[in-house]
Amino acid sequence: MTLPHVSIEDVRAAAKRIAPYVNRTPVATSQTLRSEIEAAVYFKLESQQKIGAFKARGAVNAVLQLDEQSASRGVMTHSSGNHGQALAYAASIRDISCTVVVPDDAPQVKMDAMQGYGAELVLTPHRERVATAARVQKETGATFIHPFNDVRIIAGQGTAALELLEDVPDLDVLIAPVGGGGLMSGTTVVGRSLRPQMRLIGAEPAQVDDAQRSLASGQIQPATGNPTIADGLRTELQQLTFDILSAGHIEIETVSEEQIADAARFHLFRMKHLVEPSGATGLAVVRKLADELAGYQVGVIVSGGNTDLSWL
Amino acid sequence: MTLPHVSIEDVRAAAKRIAPYVNRTPVATSQTLRSEIEAAVYFKLESQQKIGAFKARGAVNAVLQLDEQSASRGVMTHSSGNHGQALAYAASIRDISCTVVVPDDAPQVKMDAMQGYGAELVLTPHRERVATAARVQKETGATFIHPFNDVRIIAGQGTAALELLEDVPDLDVLIAPVGGGGLMSGTTVVGRSLRPQMRLIGAEPAQVDDAQRSLASGQIQPATGNPTIADGLRTELQQLTFDILSAGHIEIETVSEEQIADAARFHLFRMKHLVEPSGATGLAVVRKLADELAGYQVGVIVSGGNTDLSWL
Repeated sequence: MTLPHVSIEDVRAAAKRIAPYVNRTPVATSQTLRSEIEAAVYFKLESQQKIGAFKARGAVNAVLQLDEQSASRGVMTHSSGNHGQALAYAASIRDISCTVVVPDDAPQVKMDAMQGYGAELVLTPHRERVATAARVQKETGATFIHPFNDVRIIAGQGTAALELLEDVPDLDVLIAPVGGGGLMSGTTVVGRSLRPQMRLIGAEPAQVDDAQRSLASGQIQPATGNPTIADGLRTELQQLTFDILSAGHIEIETVSEEQIADAARFHLFRMKHLVEPSGATGLAVVRKLADELAGYQVGVIVSGGNTDLSWL
Repeated sequence: MTLPHVSIEDVRAAAKRIAPYVNRTPVATSQTLRSEIEAAVYFKLESQQKIGAFKARGAVNAVLQLDEQSASRGVMTHSSGNHGQALAYAASIRDISCTVVVPDDAPQVKMDAMQGYGAELVLTPHRERVATAARVQKETGATFIHPFNDVRIIAGQGTAALELLEDVPDLDVLIAPVGGGGLMSGTTVVGRSLRPQMRLIGAEPAQVDDAQRSLASGQIQPATGNPTIADGLRTELQQLTFDILSAGHIEIETVSEEQIADAARFHLFRMKHLVEPSGATGLAVVRKLADELAGYQVGVIVSGGNTDLSWL
């Protein structure tokens, strides 16, 4: 199946391009989980990725493709979290500047992390961040790198699924979290190309079920604005990710806040891995669908491990 | 160098014996740590071991060596933590009974874990636990398996260092926590046999520095009874472990409560691994000795990951 915007060749090229700068993350299993449910579940631990999340893959893929002249003017984005860290890390590889427009109510720990990777921060009230980003871009001439609505980003994020299918080729089901849809889009491109019959499931908090409603209605629905402990997943889809997920006929499964927290606790206290709530939505879906997944090989992309444990 | 009580052949035999029932745990490194200090540090993650701690190795090695008649009467021990879980797990392999005498003020979560592995618990006031254990043993005829003062246990614990040296053969320094000394004794047998010139360092909380005082004075010193977040390390040495650590000329390095907590936080928030404070003492020592370890290859045995995060 051919999907719009991004091809499996784009993902393979990304994998080759970024390999020197990202981790090939481990795949974990759990005997305890195996005794609880009858599916064989393989967790791709992007919590062990550079900057602690899969976002390093897309950002590095995007920054490495800038021509010298664009690169010399630096890169910029708006982000209150992992994408800002990822872009700063990617910029550091080419020794170019990175500016991140940050909502002035973003957690200090996230700001520190972005600065730790060398980003220059521009604080702005949340509602002015688009205007502020436009102004910064005009002043600096830096290239704006969107966190997900960008073919280079989507191709980069797809490399996680590519690696997982290299390690576990016979997966029947592949699950990844859906926020803006960058990771799920890359995952869908890989899944539909390499194993067309595979079930592809996007894991979404019930609190912010805009992806489910968007795919059901055939047009992008706005984010609910509800709070969720899976704070990386509050964003709505945009055109590229909507097109890919629609054409890929993925399923969306929603999970409650309690199911997400329980899954994150299982990762932490049983598997001994720190996983952010967004990254635990995949396990939450596995448990919710335990009966119908029995007997199958299930892959889960654990998106990251950047959390202060406030949800505990 | 030949050490008393346990030989490298005993450890090799244990490795072969227990292999089907324990995990070959992963070895982790950290780029962030590498940028902080100039040693190359390899963490052997016994947090990823069966029951979440290295103790599965020794307990399985001991239980598998029981003759049929002894085994049929079951095994027992006293423990408020990992050894109880480990012995219950080992007993389940042979489908024999396991009784654990538990102080009645032990955390419920630990009791639940022991019962989860099939142990029968006998609650007793802390000061009566030795007498209670003697009574239970007399009544049941079960074989008492000491948590560390047992050559089968020590040989089993040594298999962690054996695996680490197989994966990273050119270690210059090897660090493990010291409580009763079972893990450090097995580590010492392996280290002195395979790399006689290696520095062997036992990591001990300054609050409970009895191993340091015991080795310095040439006789076993009682535990201080002080509180420490590294609650697995409050025990004093006994004859076998004292003999091995003395003959092995190991060093002991003490670390403060704050150094231990900082190290456990680094494991959790930077490396994304849940490590119990006892298991973080090794990293605490690495950081304390950062200057003198610069340029060396350092192995650290991370003893386990069973913690409720109350130290956070």
